Amino acid sequence: MEFIQKHSQLLEDRILQLDLPAQPSNLYDPLRYFLQLGGKRMRPVLTLLGAELFGTEAEQAVHAALAIEVFHNFTLIHDDIMDEAPLRRKQATVHTKWNNNIAILSGDVLFVKAYDLLSHQSGDLRELMHVFNRTAKEVCEGQQMDMDFEQQTTVAIADYTEMIRLKTSVLLGCALELGAIVAGAQPADRRLIYDFGLSIGLAFQIQDDILDLYADPEKFGKQVGGDVMANKKTMLYLKAMEMATAEQREVLNQLYTEQDMAFKVARTREVFDAIGAKEECTKLMNAYYEKARKAMAALNVPDERKKPLLLLGEYLLTRDV
Amino acid sequence: MEFIQKHSQLLEDRILQLDLPAQPSNLYDPLRYFLQLGGKRMRPVLTLLGAELFGTEAEQAVHAALAIEVFHNFTLIHDDIMDEAPLRRKQATVHTKWNNNIAILSGDVLFVKAYDLLSHQSGDLRELMHVFNRTAKEVCEGQQMDMDFEQQTTVAIADYTEMIRLKTSVLLGCALELGAIVAGAQPADRRLIYDFGLSIGLAFQIQDDILDLYADPEKFGKQVGGDVMANKKTMLYLKAMEMATAEQREVLNQLYTEQDMAFKVARTREVFDAIGAKEECTKLMNAYYEKARKAMAALNVPDERKKPLLLLGEYLLTRDV
Repeated sequence: MEFIQKHSQLLEDRILQLDLPAQPSNLYDPLRYFLQLGGKRMRPVLTLLGAELFGTEAEQAVHAALAIEVFHNFTLIHDDIMDEAPLRRKQATVHTKWNNNIAILSGDVLFVKAYDLLSHQSGDLRELMHVFNRTAKEVCEGQQMDMDFEQQTTVAIADYTEMIRLKTSVLLGCALELGAIVAGAQPADRRLIYDFGLSIGLAFQIQDDILDLYADPEKFGKQVGGDVMANKKTMLYLKAMEMATAEQREVLNQLYTEQDMAFKVARTREVFDAIGAKEECTKLMNAYYEKARKAMAALNVPDERKKPLLLLGEYLLTRDV
Repeated sequence: MEFIQKHSQLLEDRILQLDLPAQPSNLYDPLRYFLQLGGKRMRPVLTLLGAELFGTEAEQAVHAALAIEVFHNFTLIHDDIMDEAPLRRKQATVHTKWNNNIAILSGDVLFVKAYDLLSHQSGDLRELMHVFNRTAKEVCEGQQMDMDFEQQTTVAIADYTEMIRLKTSVLLGCALELGAIVAGAQPADRRLIYDFGLSIGLAFQIQDDILDLYADPEKFGKQVGGDVMANKKTMLYLKAMEMATAEQREVLNQLYTEQDMAFKVARTREVFDAIGAKEECTKLMNAYYEKARKAMAALNVPDERKKPLLLLGEYLLTRDV
C-alpha cells in the first residue's frame, strides 16, 4: 500500500522532529523514548486520508494528524501504568523504565502537546476542538469501563461493545473527521466519515479479539492466547459464554482457574470451536465492516477518492496477524 | 473584599453546576467530590478581574475562568498522587479515597474538561490556547523540577525560583492574561498584566514559605513547621543556608536528621532567626510585590480600574495565615 507508506513515513519523520525541550530531562526523555518506539501510525494516516477524501492535500492536515498520534501515545503511557504493563512494542514501558510519577507527569505534558499541535492546525479550531475534546473524554470513559469490567464476574455484550466503541473506535472516527474538518467538509459528510471510522474501529477490535486465539503463531507479534491466559472478557469469550450449553459454560468456568496455561489455551479453543464462537465473531466483524462500507457509499465525493480508505479498511480487516 | 466575594461566589456556583456525566461513576464521582472541596477560587477570580481591567464584563470571561480552575484542580489530583498526599483541604485525596488508577484517569478527563471549557470561551481561541498550552506545559515542568529537587542534596536559589515560577506563578499570569485576551487587550498590555500576575505569584509563594514557620498557629490552617519537618528546600531554608556561618550550617545539617519534630522545628527557627532568613525572604517578597505594582502602573488603562487587582494583591500579600 504505497500511498499509506508515503503518509506514514511523513508522519514518522514529523513525530521524530517534534520540538520537545531538553529540560527537565526526567520529563522529556521518556517522551523522546516512547515516541520513537514506532507503531503503525494508523490513526494520523486516517486524518491525512480524511483530508484527501474531501479534496485537500494531506500536508494541510498534518498538525491535526500529529495531535491525534500524540494523544494516542499519551493514553498508552497512562494506560500502561494502570494496566501495570511491563512492555509496549516489546520495549520497556515508561513507568517501568522510569517510574509511575514520571509516567504520569510526562503523559500529562504530552497531552498538552497534543492540544498545542491541534491549535496550530488551520481550519475551524472550535470545530476541531469540539470533536477532539468529545473523543478524548470518551476514550477516558472507555478505559474506565475496561478497568471496571475487570472487577465484574459478567459483562453484557452491549456493555462490552460500548467499551470498545469508547476506548478504541471513536478515535478512528475522530481522526478521519478532523481531516474532513480541515478540508471544510459539510456536516452530513463529516458524520458519514466519522461513522466509517467508528465501524472500522469496532470491526478491527473484534478482529483483534479473534486473532488473540486464532492467529498464526509464526506471524503473530504477541503470544497466542494471551487474552485467554489473562481471563480477559473479550468478544470471543462473551459470545462463547452466551452461546454455550450449560455443560460448555461449566467447562469454561473451570478453565478460568486452570494453572497449566498451554492446556488452558488449547482446551478453551476446543470449546470455543465446538460453540462456533469464532464464526459468530467473524459475522459480527463483517457486519461492522459492511456498515462502514455503506457509510462510505453514502458519502458525497467522487468514487475515485474513496478508494484509498476502502483499500485501507480491507487491508486492516483481512490481516491474519 | 466584596467585589471578590461576588466573583468567587459566581465561580463556586458555576463549578458545582459543571456538566459531568453520571457514568462511569468511578470516573466522575471522584471529580464531583474533589470540585466541591472548595478552595479560594483565587485563580479564576483573576481571569474575571483581568477582563474587567480592560473594560469587559466579568461574566464574559467565565468559561476561561472555569478552564483555569478546572485545570488547577486536575494538577492537584495528579500532584497528590505523586506526593503521596493523604489530605487536601483536610479531606481525603482522590487516590486515597479511591485508588491511584482512578486518580490518574479522572484527572485526565478533568484536563479534557478544562480544554472543553476553554473552547467555549468567546474571543480569539488560538490566542487563548497559545497562552493556556504554554502555561500548562510550564506547570508540568515545574512539578518535575520540584520532584527532581527532592532527590538532590542542594538546590541553587536561581533553580528554586525557576521552579516556583513554573509550578505556581505562571498560572496566575495566565489566568489574568486569558481575561485580557477575552477583553481584546493589546499585546503590550497583555504582557504587563501577565507580568503582574507572575510577580504576585512569586511573592505569594515566598510568603507561603515564610508562613510555614512563622504563621500564628491559632490562625494557620496547617501544622506550623510542616516544611521543616519534611526537610523541604523552601526559599526560607535556601536563604538560611546561603547566609549561614559554617557553624550554623553544621547545626542545620544535623537538624536534617533530627527525629524529635517539636525540637527540630523550634531549633530550626532559632537558627533561622539568628541568620535573619525571614527578613531576607520578606525583602525578596517585597521586591516581587514592587515589580508587580510597577507592571500595573505601566498598564494603559484608567487608574480607577486598576484598584481591584491592586487591592487583591495587597490582601494576598499581607495575610498572616
